[in-house]
Amino acid sequence: MHNCTRADDLPIRLIAVGDELLEGRQQDTNSRDVQGALGRRGLAASGVQVVPDRLEAIGAALRATDAPGLVLVYGGLGSTDDDLTREAVAAWAGVALTTDRALQSRLEERWRARGLSDVSGALRQAQKPAGMTALPNPVGSAPGLVGYLAGRTVVLLPGVPSELRALLPAVLDWLEAIGVLPRRRGSLLLRTAQIPELALQRKCEPVRQAYPELLWSWWQTPWGVDVRLALPPGCTETESASAAERPAATRERSAAAGDRLAVAGDELAAVLGPLVYTRETKDLNLIVQELMLERAATLSVAESCTAGLLAARLTDHDGSSGYFRGGVVAYADAVKQKQLGVPASLLEAAGAVSKPVAEAMASGCRDRLGTDFAVAITGISGPGGGTEEKPVGTTWIAVATPAAVFCDCFRFPGTRRRNRRLTVAIALDILRRILQGGDETTPWLPDDSWRRRP
Amino acid sequence: MHNCTRADDLPIRLIAVGDELLEGRQQDTNSRDVQGALGRRGLAASGVQVVPDRLEAIGAALRATDAPGLVLVYGGLGSTDDDLTREAVAAWAGVALTTDRALQSRLEERWRARGLSDVSGALRQAQKPAGMTALPNPVGSAPGLVGYLAGRTVVLLPGVPSELRALLPAVLDWLEAIGVLPRRRGSLLLRTAQIPELALQRKCEPVRQAYPELLWSWWQTPWGVDVRLALPPGCTETESASAAERPAATRERSAAAGDRLAVAGDELAAVLGPLVYTRETKDLNLIVQELMLERAATLSVAESCTAGLLAARLTDHDGSSGYFRGGVVAYADAVKQKQLGVPASLLEAAGAVSKPVAEAMASGCRDRLGTDFAVAITGISGPGGGTEEKPVGTTWIAVATPAAVFCDCFRFPGTRRRNRRLTVAIALDILRRILQGGDETTPWLPDDSWRRRP
Repeated sequence: MHNCTRADDLPIRLIAVGDELLEGRQQDTNSRDVQGALGRRGLAASGVQVVPDRLEAIGAALRATDAPGLVLVYGGLGSTDDDLTREAVAAWAGVALTTDRALQSRLEERWRARGLSDVSGALRQAQKPAGMTALPNPVGSAPGLVGYLAGRTVVLLPGVPSELRALLPAVLDWLEAIGVLPRRRGSLLLRTAQIPELALQRKCEPVRQAYPELLWSWWQTPWGVDVRLALPPGCTETESASAAERPAATRERSAAAGDRLAVAGDELAAVLGPLVYTRETKDLNLIVQELMLERAATLSVAESCTAGLLAARLTDHDGSSGYFRGGVVAYADAVKQKQLGVPASLLEAAGAVSKPVAEAMASGCRDRLGTDFAVAITGISGPGGGTEEKPVGTTWIAVATPAAVFCDCFRFPGTRRRNRRLTVAIALDILRRILQGGDETTPWLPDDSWRRRP
Repeated sequence: MHNCTRADDLPIRLIAVGDELLEGRQQDTNSRDVQGALGRRGLAASGVQVVPDRLEAIGAALRATDAPGLVLVYGGLGSTDDDLTREAVAAWAGVALTTDRALQSRLEERWRARGLSDVSGALRQAQKPAGMTALPNPVGSAPGLVGYLAGRTVVLLPGVPSELRALLPAVLDWLEAIGVLPRRRGSLLLRTAQIPELALQRKCEPVRQAYPELLWSWWQTPWGVDVRLALPPGCTETESASAAERPAATRERSAAAGDRLAVAGDELAAVLGPLVYTRETKDLNLIVQELMLERAATLSVAESCTAGLLAARLTDHDGSSGYFRGGVVAYADAVKQKQLGVPASLLEAAGAVSKPVAEAMASGCRDRLGTDFAVAITGISGPGGGTEEKPVGTTWIAVATPAAVFCDCFRFPGTRRRNRRLTVAIALDILRRILQGGDETTPWLPDDSWRRRP
């Protein structure tokens, strides 16, 4: 249960403000985003509270936080009367609300530029508890506010998810700069696909034992599982003094710890091999897009059970039209025949969920849509349609390349929804392995966990 | 901001227990599910706390709740030593932990049936704070526990999302039965598509003013916006006494209030007209599936900017192969030509995002895939690709039926991701309107909010 080390020496409390969060009308994605940003630094909050837009509720949540500690409050920074976070924080900390005149001018200008004649809301949004500093909001009007109040480091962020996400990097930079959070270089990331979390943890175990001082965390993602290694808080630059001002012994200890982290990361990457699709923060579908664009190659897809989900993920990012040409959703056998040229005799003899049909779908798709590569998927997502020979979850994935056709069978253990998502993630990753490894190399490993030779 | 009436006379506190929620490794979907279940009864929690698997943290959260009131705690009911919710609740309430022997036998039997020889965990899961009652878990081992402790109504649920969801109906029935929650018949639902939340609220306003005693709530869904009307708590059967035992005057008041609710629902349905796709809890893609299966009709889709997302949604539910045949993801113009037969001259003259191309895609898809209906989508999702004449968000949706081809233009205001989702929801709803209204009827209304005639 305890994969991620909680920073016990720095209590972190999150407070989400907003009636809409309590009414279930809007999901609290902000807490997830803040937790994700902390988690990527090896830190975890010690508590989250969701409170309504009321002075007394926000105040009670603030009083329940610890000093010294870090408190992040999001929501209630808008320009209307029911946005009460500024007032609640000032009252709790016993400081006045002051007006940031420069900020007010910028906000009024922004509002006028958008054609609004009533700019009185700018006055409200330019107010801040005395002692706090405004961080400019790159995508909206409400600034982030940061400061030290009542013995705690306090961060106030707007509740609009896109604005919170846009402000988070500046907030984390500020927290790093003042030494409240460990610096980013104290951790590194390996993103994996095609392996379940427990199997990945087992593979990491030897490296984990060789570097007992490092903190490890694993995260499920839409593409697989991420693993992060972090230096413990004591080994990172947590003081506000710059490197030059710190004692030489501390600097050396930090440098040695950082070296060990880098070596551990390289050792782990060697152990995990092609399971790692990137050591950056990029998503798997973006990695595939970059690899395709690098090669100036084109792609098409033929999908049966996933019925368009793979094509949808391949086109999530702007610029996908540079390599993705299109596809065929071949849900019915007649579409497999007519649109992809799969012979009726093959469908009859082997069944729609079979190796020859998957291969014929991939080759047919590549020929008919005139692309360099084609991916084909045919499987039984469930809950109906399974047989003893081909149970629910049985899925064939084929990739036609300029040089060959690869094909293999997987057996996924989930619900209809989960099986379709796993299929898409693994199809993307097979394509990634081929693009990274060369067209002549089989992209499968003996220990790819979902893989089956039926 | 205040669309949903909070039950101020019944403070409801939610406590989510689990280290994994604080580390951001797992999203707290349980709070959303519990809030949704409460919201559908017109109720909102007055606070949510997320706490780690620690006795003192769970205890502090329990102490922060109000008496009298309702407290729902989820997580920490497993069979291992770090599952501490039972202990924390017993300590907070000052009661002993007792063992439910009948439950223990059932759990041991269940574990043995699954081939486990060590059934000692059953003893732990059969423990409960004295005075609580176990509700059997239909999909797992940890039972739900309900009871009255320390002046509050207390509900303990397992944190595994599928188990929590499976237990929620029984919990709500119990809360209704003891009169803590208003009975379900006190509310009704109308699900709408193709209209933004604010526009829907404006349309509801006359009915809202005519029935000032009703509680209204609006919810964003993947398909549009749901509106729910509920009787205020005083008008519903909130006492534990059965109907026969209550005074005649109360029974009559309840009946009259229920009649007014039903009439208000019918009046609202008349005002909203075809904006309402169902008054049941079914999703829009399931409604479309049912309508297609009723007609024994078949469907195919041709997607450009949504690139398979519509096909994916049409196949979310088991049984979709009964009507959905497949589709063409025509991302590149060459695919629109070759796979759908859109003339190159048309693409040249009108551009890929245009009425004639959308119509040609729909007709070509219907012909080539041999289906009764076909939906075609071509648009500019963004962020790139917009022009002054055809800005980002411009989207043509066409439907070919056995009798006609409908086509219209929409201009969506969101990001790439949001524009693609809005397009899919509206394409589904256009199809639904045609299937419900007849092939000869134009499915658009003068006030459909995203619609544009460019």
